[in-house]
Amino acid sequence: MKRNLLLTPGPTKIPEQLLEVLARPIIHHRTPQFQNEIKEVSEGLQYICQTQNEVYTVPASGTGAMEAAVCNLLSPGDKAICVEGGKFGERWAEICKAFNVAPVIVKVEWGKDVTVAQIKAELDKEPSIKAVFVTLVETSTGVTSDIKSIADVVKNTKAVLVVDAVSGLGVTDLQMDNWSVDVVCSASHKGLMLPPGVAFVAVSPKAYKYMETSANHRFYFDLRKAKKALDKVDTAFTPAISIMIAMNESIKMIKTEGLQNKFAQYARLAKGVQAAAEALGLKLFAQPSCRSNVLTAICVPDGMSAKKIAKEMRDVHGITIAAGQGHVEDKIVRIAHMGCLDEYDLLTGIACLEKVLAKQGHKFEFGTGLAAAQKVYNSDACAPSACGCKH
Amino acid sequence: MKRNLLLTPGPTKIPEQLLEVLARPIIHHRTPQFQNEIKEVSEGLQYICQTQNEVYTVPASGTGAMEAAVCNLLSPGDKAICVEGGKFGERWAEICKAFNVAPVIVKVEWGKDVTVAQIKAELDKEPSIKAVFVTLVETSTGVTSDIKSIADVVKNTKAVLVVDAVSGLGVTDLQMDNWSVDVVCSASHKGLMLPPGVAFVAVSPKAYKYMETSANHRFYFDLRKAKKALDKVDTAFTPAISIMIAMNESIKMIKTEGLQNKFAQYARLAKGVQAAAEALGLKLFAQPSCRSNVLTAICVPDGMSAKKIAKEMRDVHGITIAAGQGHVEDKIVRIAHMGCLDEYDLLTGIACLEKVLAKQGHKFEFGTGLAAAQKVYNSDACAPSACGCKH
Repeated sequence: MKRNLLLTPGPTKIPEQLLEVLARPIIHHRTPQFQNEIKEVSEGLQYICQTQNEVYTVPASGTGAMEAAVCNLLSPGDKAICVEGGKFGERWAEICKAFNVAPVIVKVEWGKDVTVAQIKAELDKEPSIKAVFVTLVETSTGVTSDIKSIADVVKNTKAVLVVDAVSGLGVTDLQMDNWSVDVVCSASHKGLMLPPGVAFVAVSPKAYKYMETSANHRFYFDLRKAKKALDKVDTAFTPAISIMIAMNESIKMIKTEGLQNKFAQYARLAKGVQAAAEALGLKLFAQPSCRSNVLTAICVPDGMSAKKIAKEMRDVHGITIAAGQGHVEDKIVRIAHMGCLDEYDLLTGIACLEKVLAKQGHKFEFGTGLAAAQKVYNSDACAPSACGCKH
Repeated sequence: MKRNLLLTPGPTKIPEQLLEVLARPIIHHRTPQFQNEIKEVSEGLQYICQTQNEVYTVPASGTGAMEAAVCNLLSPGDKAICVEGGKFGERWAEICKAFNVAPVIVKVEWGKDVTVAQIKAELDKEPSIKAVFVTLVETSTGVTSDIKSIADVVKNTKAVLVVDAVSGLGVTDLQMDNWSVDVVCSASHKGLMLPPGVAFVAVSPKAYKYMETSANHRFYFDLRKAKKALDKVDTAFTPAISIMIAMNESIKMIKTEGLQNKFAQYARLAKGVQAAAEALGLKLFAQPSCRSNVLTAICVPDGMSAKKIAKEMRDVHGITIAAGQGHVEDKIVRIAHMGCLDEYDLLTGIACLEKVLAKQGHKFEFGTGLAAAQKVYNSDACAPSACGCKH
C-alpha cells in the first residue's frame, strides 16, 4: 500500500487520462487514421516549441534527439561549442567526439549558468565554429540557461544554436522563433508527461541547410528522411505509435491550460520547494539567477549522504527523488516539480524530506519546511488564478 | 461500432493483459525496482532468441536494431553481403551504404529465398567479407530464409551472420546458439505483441570482438555502452520504461505456452490462410518451400488493385491487412497471422476478403475460402492440442 510518488526529473508522473490512451488497442501506422495523428503531433509540437519550423519525431529517448542534431548538422572535422555545466552539457561533447566533431568546450562551474560573454569570446576567436550546443535546463544541477541572450549573439554568426530542451520544454519558456533558436531537441517523458520513447527535433531553415551538406554517417536519425516522410504525412520508419497518440492528448491538455500559464504554475511550485529547503537551513545548489522551474537541487547537510536520503525516501516512504550525478552525486538531492504535479505533491515530498533529514540527524523544527512552502503557495504573488491551477 | 482487427505484419494486436500493463503508473528507471525489470527482460529475450548471449535493448524501432548491427560491427571500407529479396533486405544495403560499408548484394527474386550456394559463392570469391546480412522473414514477400543452412556456411568463415529477425522472432524458429547465428536484431511490435518502441540486439562473442574494433561513428546505438550498462543492470540512456515492463509480461505469456508450441500454432494459422487463398483461385506469392508463419502474401486477380482491396477491407469493414510494397505494391495483399490472433480472427479476415473480392468482380462461390481454412483448422494434422492453443 506504499505511495508511488515520482518527484524525479524524468520520467515524470503520467496523468490518468494519458494512461488510459496508452492502454487503447493499437492501430496501424500506415493508415489515414494514423496520418491524422502525425499531423496533430506535428502541429502540437510546433505549439510546444513555439515555432513554425517543422518538428521531426523519431522513436528514441532524448539522447537520440541530441545525436540527430550532431550527426545531421556537422561533418567530421567541424568545430562546435559545447557548454559544459553539468552531466548533460558533457553529453554534447561526448556525442561530438563520437562523430569526429571537435568540441570547443566552454566550462561552467556546476550550479552556475554560462554567460553570453563566454560564448561570444569563443565565437570571435574561432569563426569557423558551425554550431553552439547548449542545455535549456541542466538536469544534473537545476540550472536554466539564458537561451534568449545566447541566441541574440549566435544568430549573427554562421553558427547554429542547438538547444537540448529534453528537460525544460513545456516547463520553462523557450521561444524558438522569437528568439532565433535553430534546433530544439526534446523527448516525450518530461514536460509532456508521457513514457520515454519519442524523441523530437525542431529545425530552422538555417539549420536545415547544414543538414543537406553534412557528411556524417547517419540512417535511423537522418532528418532528411524524416522530412521527406513528414512531407507525405508519414514517418520514415515504424513510429512509437501508442506514445505518439498519447502525445496528442498530452498537448491538448497543455493547450487547454496555456503554455505561459504552465510556466507560471511550475515557477510557483519551484518557489515553494526552494523556500522549504532554505527554511530547513539547506543551501540551494543553483545560483538564484538561474534556478529552474524544472527541478530544485538542494545541498544536503555536511556529512550526510544524498544517496542515503533519496534511498530512504524511496524505499521506506515510496517517494522518489534523485540524488546527484557526477562529482556531486552524494552531495545534492534533486526534487523535480514538472509534469502532472501540484502543490500537494510537493508538500508531500517536503514532509518526507523533513522526516528523513531529522532521522539522519539534521536539526530543525518539524514543519518548518512545510510552512515555508505553504506560505508561498498561498501568497498573492503566487495566486492560483495567475498560474492556471484549478484549485 | 466498426471492428478494429489488425491482420498487419507489425504492429500486431496487443493482448488486453499487456494493454493493462502499459496503463500502469510509470516508475523511475534508476531504481532497484526497474533493475529487476532489466534483469527479467534480459533473460526473457535470451529465451526468445534461444541464446546464452547477451541481448541489448535500445529505445527505437526495428531499423534502429539494424543500424546498431551495421555501425557496431563494421568500419568504413569494409565489405558485407546483403541478401536482397525484398524491401527489408534492401534496407540492409541502404544502411551499409550510409555507413560507408560496401555491400556485396545477393539478389533474390521476390517470393523466393536465397540459396546457401549463392552466399557461399560470394564468400569464396571475397574472403575479406566481414558480415552477412540476411532477413529471417521478409515482410514484403512473406518468405522465410533458411537461416540454419546459411549459418552452417558462414560459421566457418571470418564473417559474422547477422539476422534481421524483426518479423519472425517468436513466430518462427531461430535457434541463435544451436545454429551459430552471430547477431539477432528484433523489436517489440511483432512477435512480442507490444507497441513499437524497443529494439534489441543479441550478440555472440565472435560478433562482440568486431564491435570492439569497429571505427564507425556511433553513440546512441553504441552497443559497448549498452554492454557496460547491462553489466551493472542498467541502461546506457533512458529506456522505454513502460514497454520494457510490458515486455516481461509478454515473454511470460509466451513462456507459458512454450516457444515451440507458439511456432506450431502460427504455422497452423498460416496453413489455413494459404488454403483459403488457393481455394479462392488465388496464387500465393511466396514459393511453397519458403512460405512464412508470419504472414501470407497473396497475388490479387489480374486487373485488380491490391491497394483498393486493402483499403475497402479497412475503411468499410474495419479489418486491416497490408497491400504490397515496392514493385508489387498493387499486386499482392499481405495477411499477417502473428501475435495475439487465433483461427477465428483469420476466418474473419478471410470472410472479409471474400466479400471484397466478390464485390470487385472475382468469381468464386462464397464460403469456399472459409471452408478451406476451417478444414485445415479442424484437421488432425493441425490438432489444437499440438499447437498450444486453448480452444
